[in-house]
Amino acid sequence: MHKPYAEEVKIDGIVLSRLMPDEDLFASLKKIAKDHGIERGVILSAIGSLKNVVFVNVRPHTGIPVKTEDMIEIEEGGPFELLSLEGNFFPSQEDGEPVIHLHAILGTSSGAVTGGHLLKARVFTTAEIILGSLTGSSVYKAKSDVTQRMELLKG
Amino acid sequence: MHKPYAEEVKIDGIVLSRLMPDEDLFASLKKIAKDHGIERGVILSAIGSLKNVVFVNVRPHTGIPVKTEDMIEIEEGGPFELLSLEGNFFPSQEDGEPVIHLHAILGTSSGAVTGGHLLKARVFTTAEIILGSLTGSSVYKAKSDVTQRMELLKG
Amino acid sequence: MHKPYAEEVKIDGIVLSRLMPDEDLFASLKKIAKDHGIERGVILSAIGSLKNVVFVNVRPHTGIPVKTEDMIEIEEGGPFELLSLEGNFFPSQEDGEPVIHLHAILGTSSGAVTGGHLLKARVFTTAEIILGSLTGSSVYKAKSDVTQRMELLKG
Repeated sequence: MHKPYAEEVKIDGIVLSRLMPDEDLFASLKKIAKDHGIERGVILSAIGSLKNVVFVNVRPHTGIPVKTEDMIEIEEGGPFELLSLEGNFFPSQEDGEPVIHLHAILGTSSGAVTGGHLLKARVFTTAEIILGSLTGSSVYKAKSDVTQRMELLKG
Repeated sequence: MHKPYAEEVKIDGIVLSRLMPDEDLFASLKKIAKDHGIERGVILSAIGSLKNVVFVNVRPHTGIPVKTEDMIEIEEGGPFELLSLEGNFFPSQEDGEPVIHLHAILGTSSGAVTGGHLLKARVFTTAEIILGSLTGSSVYKAKSDVTQRMELLKG
Repeated sequence: MHKPYAEEVKIDGIVLSRLMPDEDLFASLKKIAKDHGIERGVILSAIGSLKNVVFVNVRPHTGIPVKTEDMIEIEEGGPFELLSLEGNFFPSQEDGEPVIHLHAILGTSSGAVTGGHLLKARVFTTAEIILGSLTGSSVYKAKSDVTQRMELLKG
């Protein structure tokens, strides 16, 4: 069972980081979170450039629960300007490990923009990321029986 | 009459919320603002997925003041990954009610990205929203005689 | 020589601003930073509309170091809804002047979205910008010998 919620939290600690060429974006974020003791985090700002990206989007007319075949996976070598990176991480209910949820928007040389729910990415030239630590929260990530995806749930 | 301004404010209160399938995005934000006493708010982070979206963009070569026929309205069932949601709300000068100003960026299954100034949307699977309360500000929203749109104006 | 880093900083001062039609986005941000004593800043939120934009994206299969001919420049009159503006500014190592690094995402009347690493832009109707002052940081911008671009480097 899950239900909506809204809880007052604090952003209590901010980390400014710069990732280097070829770094794995997800692994780097996990390392920063661990090194700085951030259990629940939010990306406050991120720009730079990415390569070797894999992302998914949902097929039109998809309903709930979302099935695997409703998600279209796209893999692109790039590189791309990273125009926006939004997201957060919260501990998994199962094992406490951070579940990173990122949505990326990428610029292409035609001027068109692509992107989606990000699964993999490496840094091309740089990634300038400002991460906030959310404190006072007790929410975690768990597989929802409604959507069949990992969702934010309150204990 | 209106003029530019820049004022020092504080982000004094942060609300982490998760919206549920089918919730109306605008109504839910208004409820969260009311429940938590947020008069002026800014979206610090938001990802998830949306459906039944209506948004507008401006026609090329449009000048000021913007006329209704300069705005192109697009309605799409989706669903879409919500790749970015930027915006704020400030009280209307007229009645004090929050005027919500949101710009959404949406991923599609082809990998192309769509979006604009958002008028309506419902949550598809989830919306993870981190909202900041802006305090120390005296600005409000009122119809500008220059642009003919609701603009941030200082009292 | 440069290396990755992650440092704990504070967002110690927030400026809410509204830019007016025809203002130069880069000049206005520099003025706000100077007027409010912000040496290192991050855009926490920005929406509005832009015109006369110039932006660049990187050509597919580009490697490091990035050469001038790998960057494709696009100039568009617009106007466009400003759907997202991410970025920051840090002092140049050379002369201490702010180096503004912005990535913009723009909505078009077809519903398609365009954007890239922003070089120039003017405000169309408005720009509502919330800027955070980053304190406790000692990083600056300098031309990287690896990427041949201006990068965040730690002293």
